Parts: sequence; C-alpha cells; structure tokens
Amino acid sequence: MVSTIKRLLIGRPLKTHEAGEQKLNILKALAILSSDALSSVAYGTEQILLVLVTVSTVAFWYSIPIAIGVLILLTALILSYRQIIFSYPHGGGAYVVSKENLGVNPGLISGGSLLVDYILTVAVSVSAGTDAITSAFPSMHPHTVLIAVVLVICITILNLRGVTESATVLAYPVYLFVVALVILIGFGLYKIMTGDISPKLHAPIGTPVMGISLFLLLRAFASGCSALTGVEAISNAIPNFKNPAPNNAAKTLILMGTLLAILFTGITYLAYYYGVAPKENETVVSQIATDTFGRNFVYYFIQGTTALILVLAANTGFSAFPLLAFNLAKDKYFARMFTMRGDRLGYSNGIITLALASIVLIIIFKGKTEHLIPLYAVGVFIPFTLSQTGMIVKWIREKPSGWIPKLISNLVGAVISFIVMMIFFITKFSQVWPVLIFLPLIVIFFHKVKKHYDSVGEQLRIKPDAVIPKIDGNVIIIPVSGITEAVGKSIAYAQTITDQVIAVYVAFEREDEHVFEEKWKKWHPEVRLVTLHSHYRSIITPLRKFIDTVEYKAREANYWVSVLIPQFIPKKPWHNFLHNQSSLLIRAYLLYRRNVIVTTLPYHFKK
Amino acid sequence: MVSTIKRLLIGRPLKTHEAGEQKLNILKALAILSSDALSSVAYGTEQILLVLVTVSTVAFWYSIPIAIGVLILLTALILSYRQIIFSYPHGGGAYVVSKENLGVNPGLISGGSLLVDYILTVAVSVSAGTDAITSAFPSMHPHTVLIAVVLVICITILNLRGVTESATVLAYPVYLFVVALVILIGFGLYKIMTGDISPKLHAPIGTPVMGISLFLLLRAFASGCSALTGVEAISNAIPNFKNPAPNNAAKTLILMGTLLAILFTGITYLAYYYGVAPKENETVVSQIATDTFGRNFVYYFIQGTTALILVLAANTGFSAFPLLAFNLAKDKYFARMFTMRGDRLGYSNGIITLALASIVLIIIFKGKTEHLIPLYAVGVFIPFTLSQTGMIVKWIREKPSGWIPKLISNLVGAVISFIVMMIFFITKFSQVWPVLIFLPLIVIFFHKVKKHYDSVGEQLRIKPDAVIPKIDGNVIIIPVSGITEAVGKSIAYAQTITDQVIAVYVAFEREDEHVFEEKWKKWHPEVRLVTLHSHYRSIITPLRKFIDTVEYKAREANYWVSVLIPQFIPKKPWHNFLHNQSSLLIRAYLLYRRNVIVTTLPYHFKK
Repeated sequence: MVSTIKRLLIGRPLKTHEAGEQKLNILKALAILSSDALSSVAYGTEQILLVLVTVSTVAFWYSIPIAIGVLILLTALILSYRQIIFSYPHGGGAYVVSKENLGVNPGLISGGSLLVDYILTVAVSVSAGTDAITSAFPSMHPHTVLIAVVLVICITILNLRGVTESATVLAYPVYLFVVALVILIGFGLYKIMTGDISPKLHAPIGTPVMGISLFLLLRAFASGCSALTGVEAISNAIPNFKNPAPNNAAKTLILMGTLLAILFTGITYLAYYYGVAPKENETVVSQIATDTFGRNFVYYFIQGTTALILVLAANTGFSAFPLLAFNLAKDKYFARMFTMRGDRLGYSNGIITLALASIVLIIIFKGKTEHLIPLYAVGVFIPFTLSQTGMIVKWIREKPSGWIPKLISNLVGAVISFIVMMIFFITKFSQVWPVLIFLPLIVIFFHKVKKHYDSVGEQLRIKPDAVIPKIDGNVIIIPVSGITEAVGKSIAYAQTITDQVIAVYVAFEREDEHVFEEKWKKWHPEVRLVTLHSHYRSIITPLRKFIDTVEYKAREANYWVSVLIPQFIPKKPWHNFLHNQSSLLIRAYLLYRRNVIVTTLPYHFKK
Repeated sequence: MVSTIKRLLIGRPLKTHEAGEQKLNILKALAILSSDALSSVAYGTEQILLVLVTVSTVAFWYSIPIAIGVLILLTALILSYRQIIFSYPHGGGAYVVSKENLGVNPGLISGGSLLVDYILTVAVSVSAGTDAITSAFPSMHPHTVLIAVVLVICITILNLRGVTESATVLAYPVYLFVVALVILIGFGLYKIMTGDISPKLHAPIGTPVMGISLFLLLRAFASGCSALTGVEAISNAIPNFKNPAPNNAAKTLILMGTLLAILFTGITYLAYYYGVAPKENETVVSQIATDTFGRNFVYYFIQGTTALILVLAANTGFSAFPLLAFNLAKDKYFARMFTMRGDRLGYSNGIITLALASIVLIIIFKGKTEHLIPLYAVGVFIPFTLSQTGMIVKWIREKPSGWIPKLISNLVGAVISFIVMMIFFITKFSQVWPVLIFLPLIVIFFHKVKKHYDSVGEQLRIKPDAVIPKIDGNVIIIPVSGITEAVGKSIAYAQTITDQVIAVYVAFEREDEHVFEEKWKKWHPEVRLVTLHSHYRSIITPLRKFIDTVEYKAREANYWVSVLIPQFIPKKPWHNFLHNQSSLLIRAYLLYRRNVIVTTLPYHFKK
C-alpha cells in the first residue's frame, strides 16, 4: 500500500539509462532555475524605498542611481558566472570554483554557506507567498504555518517527480509572471509617454536631501542587492541541461540576466515616476498596478502571478541544493546518501533533507521569516565573492588567450560582491552575526565527515600482509524462552552448523529453573542447557556475562561465537505490540556493544 | 550515560526477592491509595451546590439530605468492598469479581472501564491541581499544559522509584490535607457553637423551593457521588500490602471511608450553615476557610494542601492501573509486557503507559479536562455495579454461614450504584455517551488480544507427531558492496559453515559490473560471485529475486538458505548517519517478508 501511494505521488520508478530524457532545454531550465532571481523583482525596489523613506520621500530619487548600481553588479555577476559555466562544465558553482582555486576551506565555506542559504530561500519565499495568500483571504491567517508547510510539501513532491516534470509544471507560472510584469511596465511607460497618467509628486533626480548619509545609501544599495540572490543557481545545475550543457546553461543565464534587468529597471522607474511610497498594507508592485490599470482583471492577474512566483522561488533551492549536496558528498565532505538517485533519478535525499530543514525553520519562526532575509543575502554574497576571487586566481595562474578581459570582469564582480558583503556586515550586523558562528561550525562538520570516511576507507582496505584469523569451528548460543516449535527449528538449524550448541534459559524465579531443566532433558537431551538466574529481571545482563565467558574460552580454541535468536514474526503488524521484542534488544546490544555474530531465525505465525 | 540518568531518577535496581520489603503498612497505603477519594472532598460539596444554584439559593438546604444519601452509598460501598477484599485476597477488584461471578464479558467491561478511568483520573486531577497553581500565580497561566505534563512526569518518576518510596513521599501531603480540613471543620463548628460567626442567610431545612424537580435533585446527587471515585482502588492493590494483606487492606478501607465521611459531612454542613454559594473565582472550601479564619497563615495552609492533594489524587491511578493491567495481561487479555516488573519491582510498563496516555489527554484537551468528569464518574459506577452484582451471585451460589447480611450489604450497594449510573446516563447523556462506544471497542480489543495469544500458543506447541524438516546442508548468500576487510571476514565465517557460499554484488552501472568481477576473481576465486544489475537503483528488488531462485532450488535438495550481512558498527553514534544502513533494510525485508535466516556479522570500526 505504501508503495502504491508512493507511485501515485511521484510516479513510476525510472531506469538509470533514462537519465538523458530528464535533461532540460533552455526554456524549461529558465523556468525552474530563475524563479528565485525573477521573484526578487516583486520586492527588490520596495526594499530600497523602505530604507530611503526613513529620511524623507524626497530621497526617493536616489532609487534610480542605486538601481543602476545594482544593474552594474548584476552585469558583472552574469558575465563572471558565464565564465564559471564554461570553465567548470560539470557544475558545482561556487563550491567547486573556490575549492579548486583557493583551497579546501574557502570551498567548504562557499558550499556550507550556499547549503544553508538554499534552506533559507525555501523558508523565506514560501513564507512570503503564504503572506500573499493570507492577505487575500484573511480568514486563513490563523493557519499560516500549516499553509506554508503544505506548500513546501507540494513543491517537494513536484521535485521528487523529477526535473523535467517539475520544469513543465513550473514553466507556466514563471512565464505568466514575466508576461504580467512586461504588460505592466509596457502599459505604464505608454501612459507616461501619452501623458495619460497624473504622477504624484516626485522630486527630480539631483534634488538635495536633508539628512541623507553614505551609510544609509549603502544600506539601501545592499537591500536592493537582495534582488540578486539566486543568480548562482544555474552554475550549480549544469548537469541537468541538455547537451551541449555549458552552452545551454550560458544562454539561460544571459536570458535570465536580461529579464531580471528589464523587469527591475522598469518597476523601479515606474515607482519613481508614479511617486510610490512603501505602505504597510500594500506592496509597491500592487500600487503601480492600481495606478496603471485600476482594480480590474489585469490587476488581479498581476497580483496572482506575483504571489505564485514568490512561492515558486523556493524551487530554485530545490534545484540547486541536491546538486550541491551531491558535489560535497562525492568529495566525502557530506553523507554518502546524498549521492544516491531516487526512483525518479533526482537526488531525493537532498530534496527531502531540504524540505525537512525548511519546514523546521518555518515552524520555529511561526511563518514569520522576514528577519531571515539579511542572513540569507549575506549567505549569498560570501560564495559570490569567493567564487569570483577563485576565477581571478585561475586566470592569473593559467593565462589562457584573451584572459585580461575575463580577469577584469571577474575582478569587478569580486570587488562589488565583497563590498556588498561588507555593507551587510556593517549596516545589518545585528541580523547577520549568526553567519559568523554557524559557518565555522559547518566547515568543522564537513572536515569531521571527511575524516570519518577516510578512516573507514583505511580500515576496510584489504592489507596484502593481513593474516586472516584462523577459524577451527563455531559455538552457537541459543537464548530460549520456552519449549516451542520456534526453538525446535532453531536447534535443528544450529546442529547443521556445529555440534557445539548451547541453549541458554534466563529464569526470574528459582522454582521455574528446575521445572524447565527437567522438561528440557526429556526434549533435547543432546543439547546442553545452561540456566541463568536473573535477580534483576534483566535478560541481557546475565546473557552478556555468559557470552563473555564462552567467548573467552572459544578464542583460545579458535572457535567463533554466534548467537542464534528465534524471532516470532506476527501476521499482523499490531501483534508486535503483544510480544516483548526482547530479541530485538538482545540483537542490538550484542552487535553494537559486543563483537558477536547474531543470526536471526524467523518464525512466521500463520494467523 | 543513559543508565546513569536512570539510576539517578529512579534509583538502583532491586532484586526480585527484595519484593517483600516493598510492601505497605496501613498508614502508607492510606496515603497512596486514598488520595483520589479524599481529594474529592475539595470539590464534592461544590458539585452539589452548582446544580442546586440553578434553581435558587433557597434550594441549598437540599445539600444536607443529598449528602446523607451520598454517605449511605459510601457506607454500602465500603462494606461491600470490604467483603470483596476478604473474598479475593489476591486483588483485582471489580475485574476479578465480575469475571469470576458474572462471566468473562462483564469482567472485561469492568476492567476496561477502570483502565480508561484511571487515565481520566490522572488527567483530570493533575489538570485541577494545575488550575489551583495558575490561580495562585496567574503569570503561569499560559504554561498550563506544560506544568500539567511536568507534574505527571514527576508523579511517574516517583512511582517508578517504587511503591514504598512513593508512599513515604506522599504520606506528608495527604496527612497534612487531612489535618488542615480537620482543623477547618473543628474551628468552624466551634465558632458556630460559640455563636462567634454571623452566618449569611441560609434557608432552614424543609423550606419549600419553587421550581425544584426530582430530575434536578437526582442530578445533584449524581454530582455529589463523584466524591466516591477512587473507593475501589484499595481492592485492586491488595498484593502491595504487608501481611496479613487482606486484613490490612480492609482496615485501610474502613479508615479511608471514615475520614471521607467525616470530611465530606463537615464541609457540606459548614457550607450550608455559612450560606456559601458557589462562585466563579473562589472555591467553596476557600470561602469557608476565609469565613472561619480570614486570609491568614491557616487559610493559605488549607489552600496549599488542597492544591497538593488535587495533584496527588493522580497517584491513586498510578497505584491501581498497573495492577489492573497486570491482572488483565496475566489472563492474556492485555499485552504480556504489563506482567513484567521494572528495575524497582513496580510494573513499570503499566506506569509509563498510564503516564503517556494521560499526557496525551492533557495535551488534546489543552489542560481543560473538567468536562471529562462525568465520563470519569460513570466509568466508576459501571464497575461498582458489576462487582456488587458479582458478589450477590457469589453469596447466592456459595451460601457460606452468615451470608444473608453480606448479601444485603452488596444488594444495597449494587442497587444504589446502578441507580447512580442510570442517573448519570439520564441526566448527563450528552457528556457520557462516549462510554457506550469505547467500552464495546475495548472489550473487542481484549478478545482479539486473547485470541492472538491463544493461537500463538497453539502454533508454538510441540506436536508429538510433528516431523522435523530434514536439513542436508546450508547455502549462504553474502551481499557484498566492495572488496573490504568486512567482506573478507564474512567469507571466512561462511566457509566454516558450508562450501555453498555465494557472494552477490548489485551493480547500478554496467561498466562497474565487469570491473568488480575482475577484482573478485583475483581476490576470492573459490567463492562464486553473482552480479545483479539494478535498473532502478534498488538493492532489495534484485536481491529478493535472486534469493527466491536460490531458495527454490535449495528446497529441492533439503538445503537451508541463510543470508549473511556484514554490518559496519561505527564508533560514534552520529557516524551512523554517514552510512546508508542498507543492511538494516535488507534484514528487515528478508525476515518479515521472506522466510530467510539472516546472520549479521558486525565489523566494528576502531575510530
């Protein structure tokens, strides 16, 4: 039944060689990998205005030069990630680039930072989408957490169904959002040109502003840069592209950058020209749409697609996290299970881990994840800076033909990314300090995992000069709880292996002991029975002591000791509750605490 | 470390023969077994007045005749439970009496009803005690559920420490409560006699009351009878008494009945004479104490011990539930684990089950368990009625010397209990109907458990004419994942058992397969290697198919098939997360779904 439900939710399993059919073309890739970046348009301008409004509405004209700064950074990032795509066509993004050029620790810092970041992406964007839903339907407000969790589960199932299927489903809302915003911007500009709109008062560019400071402008710039998160996702996901993968990935990246630039510029310009100020209860995009169209069908279309893209921004995390986890696991810095493909060829362990972690975050913060945004932004600019620096080192080291312009584009990217990162640390330290604690912890954890795998590999390796321990025979100990069919079968089995079979009976009462010994003599006189008395009603303690004694003697004779446990297997699962499961306890104890071979002989009840 | 914490919480384990030292004398038994009954005094009178106040305060004089009715029922119950104690000196109370005299189903109805009732006792009384605490410290009000759960855990630990220890601890608050109420009643009566108190208006007994109805009086009587819950606890717990157990239990019962009668009469009379009316924010006992002493030290002493006894009333459930569960389990109607004594000789599985169930109730009802009280009261009067009826049948059947007076006392008890039960059903049907659903379900469950144990016993019994299956040899299948020390050790072990050893390698990639086969030929040419290709990246599916094939052939040759699984045992628990644990999955699958013997060979990592 479980497997039927699984089939229903995620579809039939795919064969390994079907992996090729699961690759993405440019349009589908853009849909699933750019939702995070594109959705930033819905709030990027607002973030800038929210900082400026603390001075005065006159300062709003600064949003135009700040937006130009963001566009410059975007261009630098797009160009330099394009170079990363061609230099590292197998993907891995910031982690691989930093590791190969700057060393292991910068690589792990990038990787750890991004891993945490993708979890934050999912939590933050699903919470934002949920807010949009509960704003439209206030009666659902008490169920915010539940709705957010259900949304995460839906996106998880979609991703477990596989890359192409999720791309097919997600393409519609992403492109609808792009279309909606293009209509909004086009119509808005048309109205401005025809003079059809009466703009509220907006101060002309260059108006002097009282009380403006560099600190504040930098803070506004940093807030605007939060629109750039998600740019690196494509470089992580190159293996998911159709061949020639690097070319397709590069084209997707350029396409995404262009769309992002157009939409961001358009919204920022309209907000400035319309004199829109951020409001408590209405987003900037909603205000622009109201001014342009009034509250008609087009307005609701724009609002609906915006809410949808905010939720779907989470999908970028779902595309990039499993591949990053795979890369870390392949290098033995992360648990091996992240290298396994699931039924639908996705790295399902990564998908499920990401889902669980973000659900935990949503529950802990009760769906109010806004104050995680700065943490999330700084977590993006650390790997941005490291990967650009890595590329600089690469160009200087390799000096391929035409390396100077490449170097310059990465240099610009690295410098701006570094500055943005520092601005975050300086202007929002109270919100971003946790990064300084958890990043070192994650890096230490990665090293511990690596150390474990290395030492396991070393211990398991066959040493050519190793002496295989001599085995002259076996002793089999059978713990028995009564004279039953199951015990009889176990004895029959043990006797085919060795004539050194010892049955052990643990008695809680003295009189019990003798009764049992008498019965046993009549039943299996040829099998030695040892009765142990347990003062403390524990089965394991006397059994352990007895096994220790036997093992000591057996070792001298080169005999191996096995414990054979007859285990009842009930027909119905609830019957398990009616049996004491001491065999499970004994087995776990002997395997983990003692070095004893444990054989389980199942006895299936027929009713 | 776990065992150190356990020692700290519940103390060192006790030997089985130390059980005698754990028996109770009368004073300690009274403390732990009567807290439920005595605590009823804190709310019994109030329950009566709450019904009467719906007519008019003039009706309060009815509380006196109603209290007399309750006292008559109390006397009948005490006398007839005294007879149960002597007739069934091994305990078991209503369950044993009903089963032996009326048949299995009445017994199971009594037992099931009481099991549920003890869970309700714990939930209701701990919630009531928590209410008293949060009334005194309103700032703790948001943490009601947490406080209640912590209290349940404390009482659970106390009970896990053993019967005598909990009795020693609990004796103080119980006796302090008795002392506090005796002081209150004594002083109150003294003040009345000396005319030192100016009573508020109270209508003289016999004043005609407008709008009073029999229905209402019955309802008030039934509410007053909720003070009688917990009376049966002593008859369940006879095995916990010092010898001569029945005599000591009977004395304890009489003592409890006397105390209960005195306190209940005293409080009811003072409430009537003082003209106390039930208030929203102040209990009747608190009003009486204020009137008698004012808000001085004595007042707070009375209030404090009252709050304490309300919490400790839960302990009666903890004393009686495990013994009742033991009796049901001994007769195979309940899971065998309830017959096992824990480290401190208490039936710890019963104690823990009761604690978990009541915590679940507290969490579900968010600490507001008042509306469970009628359910709980009716759950007491069903077994009361059945056990009294059982005693009647017993006297008629056995006719011992002087049986007529015994019969009469049980007859009176049975009739009144039955009437009270019917009053509950008639006057509070909307609150007690769930009993009619869950009692049949519990009885069906008991029968299913019994049926399972009977059929298991039948299946396990050695049949004298049974043919032991012939075994001519063994085939051992070893699933291998690489060429490692662990696999080498497993092969060495398998070869001591049989020369029919087959290694199985499940490959996910075609090229992998050939590489592995080559390596294997060099390493263990004498061991046959079978490589299976898994299209769907599952290890279990191809392995299962292969084992099915081998089993089919082996059966023809009278060979038994075992699967030998090399299992890594990491040194630190968190390392388990770094290994895929496929061996656990394979083992569970083979044992539960197939009838295959599974041997686990542990390979302990040294670092």
